[in-house]
Parts: sequence; C-alpha cells; structure tokens
Amino acid sequence: MRIDRLKQAAIKQNKPDVFVIFNPVNIFYFTGFQGAAALLISEQGENVLFVGTLNYEQAKAEVKNVQVQLLKQGENMMDKIVQQASAKKLAIDTLSIDSWRVLAKTIGSEDKLEPNNQIIRCLRAVKDEEEIKRIQEACRIADEGIKAAAQTIRTGITERQVAAEAEYAMRRAGSDGVAFGTITACGASCAYPHGGTGERIISEGDFVIVDLGAMYRLYRSDITRTFIVGKPSQRQLKMYETVKLAQQKAFENIKAHALAKEADLAARRVIEDAGMGKFFVHNLGHGVGLEIHEAPVLSPQSLDLLEPGNVVTDEPGIYVPGYGGVRIEDTVLVTKNGPEKLTKAPYAH
Amino acid sequence: MRIDRLKQAAIKQNKPDVFVIFNPVNIFYFTGFQGAAALLISEQGENVLFVGTLNYEQAKAEVKNVQVQLLKQGENMMDKIVQQASAKKLAIDTLSIDSWRVLAKTIGSEDKLEPNNQIIRCLRAVKDEEEIKRIQEACRIADEGIKAAAQTIRTGITERQVAAEAEYAMRRAGSDGVAFGTITACGASCAYPHGGTGERIISEGDFVIVDLGAMYRLYRSDITRTFIVGKPSQRQLKMYETVKLAQQKAFENIKAHALAKEADLAARRVIEDAGMGKFFVHNLGHGVGLEIHEAPVLSPQSLDLLEPGNVVTDEPGIYVPGYGGVRIEDTVLVTKNGPEKLTKAPYAH
Repeated sequence: MRIDRLKQAAIKQNKPDVFVIFNPVNIFYFTGFQGAAALLISEQGENVLFVGTLNYEQAKAEVKNVQVQLLKQGENMMDKIVQQASAKKLAIDTLSIDSWRVLAKTIGSEDKLEPNNQIIRCLRAVKDEEEIKRIQEACRIADEGIKAAAQTIRTGITERQVAAEAEYAMRRAGSDGVAFGTITACGASCAYPHGGTGERIISEGDFVIVDLGAMYRLYRSDITRTFIVGKPSQRQLKMYETVKLAQQKAFENIKAHALAKEADLAARRVIEDAGMGKFFVHNLGHGVGLEIHEAPVLSPQSLDLLEPGNVVTDEPGIYVPGYGGVRIEDTVLVTKNGPEKLTKAPYAH
Repeated sequence: MRIDRLKQAAIKQNKPDVFVIFNPVNIFYFTGFQGAAALLISEQGENVLFVGTLNYEQAKAEVKNVQVQLLKQGENMMDKIVQQASAKKLAIDTLSIDSWRVLAKTIGSEDKLEPNNQIIRCLRAVKDEEEIKRIQEACRIADEGIKAAAQTIRTGITERQVAAEAEYAMRRAGSDGVAFGTITACGASCAYPHGGTGERIISEGDFVIVDLGAMYRLYRSDITRTFIVGKPSQRQLKMYETVKLAQQKAFENIKAHALAKEADLAARRVIEDAGMGKFFVHNLGHGVGLEIHEAPVLSPQSLDLLEPGNVVTDEPGIYVPGYGGVRIEDTVLVTKNGPEKLTKAPYAH
C-alpha cells in the first residue's frame, strides 16, 4: 500500500522507475522490517529486500509484501542491487559519498544514479490511520512520563533521578524505549535548549525543563513541560506565561493547507512583543513519526505546507543565558477540522 | 590533544591539510561538544566549530579547544566553511550525497573534496585513558542492569517488564541512558539475534536473551547474558556450553597485534566442531566507544589488527530457527598484557 503510493508519486514526477532505499527507517516504513540492508522497489519487476545472515530468518518469517533475498557474508551488496535492477537508472533515497561512489562504479556511471529523498520524505510526513494510532499511544505513554517527573521533582533530587522515574513509568505504561535522550535540566542549565540530564541537584527556585518521549511500535512522541520549584518569581512567571501564550497562538495556526512557518511566526510574535525575541533561539517545531525529527519543518524559513495527517511539535521557548529557560511542547495532529493535541499531560503552571 | 593526533596522522599520510568534520560523534570526540553543525581543523590556521543558534550559548560556555562561530538562522553553512578554509582541498569525514554536491558546488569542484573517514576511524578505535575510564564505568552500570534482569526473570513476567527493571537499575547506578535498544527476548524469539523486547510472556523452559548497555558521559557498554528458565534440557545445555566455550576461546585470542579475525575464527571453530556452525549467523564482535558499533570489526573477513586500547565485544551465538538461541557477550579491553573483561556480571549458568 505504501509501496503503491511511492510508485504513484514517482510516476507523477517522471522519476526513474527503480528506487533503491538504504535508510533503515525508510525500509521499515515500506516493509515493517528493521535491520535490512537495502530495499529495491521497481515499477515493473519484483520488489526485493536484501538482508544479511544476521536477520535473514526473522525477515523471512515477518516480511510478507516484498521478496526477501539473503546477502551472504562476503557478498557484495552493490553487485546484487545492480544485477537485480538490470542496469536501469536508479533513484536513491540517501547514501554516504563513499557508498555512492561504490554503487556508481558498480553500475558504470554516476549518471545512472539520482539522489531522491524528497518523495519519501513527503509520503512519510502524512501519517495514515495505523501510524496515527501508534503515535497517539506513544503520546499517552509520554504523558505518564511527565506525570512521574512531576511527582519526583523537588529540592534535593538530582536530574538523573527525575529521568529514572519518568523512563521507568513509561516502560511500565508500555513504552518500547525512549524516543530520544530524556532531558531533565534544572537551574541555569535550562538556558540551554539541549541541557541534558546529569548529576545536578534541584534547588528551591529552579526552573526544571523535562523534555521526553516514548516509542510505541517504532513511532515516537515528544512533550516538554517546565516546572518551577517553590514559589515562582515575577520574572519566572513572565517568562512562563509568555511561552504558554506563544505555544497556544502557534497551536491555533497549525492548520491544514497553511504554511508551516505561519505557526512559527505566530509564536515568535508573542515572544517578541514581550521583549524576549532574541531568547527564542530555535524553530517552533518539527514533524514526528518513525524519527524524532522529520518533515514538515516549522521554522521562519520553512517552505512546507501543512496537510491533514501531519504530526508536528509545537515547542516555543525562552532561554536567558546564566539565568534559566522555559519550553512548553505538545505533539499535535493536523486534521481537516483543525489541530488536535496528542500529548495531554497537565501544564505545570 | 586528539586534534594534534589527527594532524600528525594526516601529515604522515600526505592528506589535505584541512579536515571538515560533519559526523556529530566525531565532532564530540574532538571538542567534547554535542549538537554542532561542522568542525574545521586546519594544519595552519584556526580550528573552528560552527554552531547554530540552538546550541551557541552552550558551545561558547563549554568548548575551550577550538574557536566557536555562530551560524545564524538562514545562513549557508557550506559558504562559511569554504570561506574559512580559503578554498584549499578539503578532507571530509562523512557526508550524504546531497550535502556533498552542495559543498562541491560551493567550493567550485568535486576535485577539491576528498572523502576520508579512515584516519578518524583508526584514531577513535584506540581509546585513551579517559575514554577507558568512561567505558569501564558504563560496563559497571551495565552489570547492574544484568543483575536486575536476573532478579526479575521468571515465568509469567513479560519481556518488557524485564527491560523496565534493567533500565531503571542502570539509571539508578548512574547511567546517562541506554547504549542501544535493550533486547530481552524469550522463547523462540531468541532464535533472532535482534529479537527485541515486546509483550511476550516468559514461560517455563524458555531461553531468555538479555542484551543491554549503559551510557556514561557518552561512552557505551555492551553485555549479553542468556538465562534458561527452570530446569535446562540436554539440548539447551549443549547450546549454552558450546557458546560459553566459544566465547572463552575467542577471549583468549583477543590479543594486541593479532588479526581481529583470529578471535572470530576461534569461536567459530568451537561452534562448528559442535555441529552447529550454520547457526552462528553473525560476526563475533565490534568495537565499542562513543558509538555502539565502531572499529575494529571482529569478523571472518576483517582485515583489522587489534591494538592496545581497543575496546571490543566478544559475542558468539547459536540461533536455531523455531527453537531458540543463546548469546553470551562481554565488552573486552585489549591491553599489551592480554585481554581484560570490562563487563563482569556473573554468567547465568
């Protein structure tokens, strides 16, 4: 079904009729299998998944929609690909320059190869029903992680303890693992968007940024909540309320058929109006799915259009060097009837 | 210091005197910083780390050994690199074909670029004292994960519960996160080397393969233990004892100045002699460090020589389709006085 959509999209764009897919995430997208070496999709001939001995038995048992071919130890994969594709022009999803040169040498000329990740990038940006279900479940699990973090955060606890409890809660709620390295940054570390998780001890008056995600059947979620430990100061409240309003304004602009940059600009305007524009140092958000960062991009420069079925993050932030930071993030589904938050954990303030 | 070693190695091999490093792991290796966009190392001029607005404040505060330059939103990184390198020939550690073409266009010709990941691959394969300390700590933490798994495994427990307890124990023991997706496969799933972790329930008589690792200050560990639930059968014991002997024989061959393939072949011989050669479907092992798979490679085809300072896995396995499998793995340090196991959790049997 997804393979059919690739073929249709390729025909529409007069692209070569053989796609060779090397990115493991793309291979999973089309076959449901992890750990294969290459996937060949032909307009006419057979579709073939090349798998090494390590994963061959599992692939044979699990993959039903394409032919599985064994790549024996020492066999040259590029030879097999060129043989199977019978020397037509090949579209390649992604490849390192080293492997590209090996493949070009094998097929005889670089002119027979064409990098083309755009079609698959666009297909993957629009999630189907099954994908949305998995992301919804990953979001539900991430909400449990945030709740566990909220219950753990207090003076004297380390960042790592917060991460431990949040991840443990997600595993118990059904997570297949973390969507990315959990961030539980406290104090001045919150001034760094990627402040990480370490041995720092949470103190009275700290901001604590908790940014985490779960994985459910390979699909990911992404949520951030910022906590203030003890009684918030006026400065903290102003930063917090500004980010919260920016996040809400962006949310209202995450609309099907709108430009993705409109949502970014809506959030940016709120933060600029509050005189803190220079502290919003990153994009509003990104697509989420099999990867934690995928299409579309929600940035001031983005040319992407939002479509029903996109799943994106809405995550403005304010980061004041030496002082601290606030970020609030939800994973949002674009529907024809408007945006829908898939993460639902309560806001901290 | 590591930058000096890169320069010395490059001079020895008459390589271009400007390296442009894009792989984030390599950038971390040389600067201690995560999240930068590119690192330029010059034989003569200044070494420069290009960082986007997202991570600029953190990079300025943390990076001391190279100059940090801001890459503003919308600025073209390839332009900045070419300007900074003043149009000399550039060695590139790794790049996708798309980015390669953009860089080639910017500098004027593909002939001014040269892919060269080999020097850095070799540097990173030999760990220095600080790296070994971190890996030792990651191994100590992984041992705690295995112990927690051993205490959890019993009839009626799901694979996911085992993973939850193991990862929680590692976090409490100081882990910065998992080194890779934890594997806790039971029953017939053990016949797949990458059997994963799911909702399967552990039964009497099952093999359970637990393959996990911790991360400590970005350095990783890797360990596998196979458990037999209840009273082992003769067939199970034969598989288990064969893998254990193979792992020991390989260990004895992980020697400085030996070919890496000798250790693989030592293990393979034991398993072949037991009549199960066709069920050992993967390589003996791989280097471990900032990445979970890095140099050297321990396979029958490997041309790598082992050196003091290498950290490698020793992980033979036997996988019988439809029945189950056994893998036993340690992370091993190569020293001039012989191999040393860094993972020390007790063997299950």
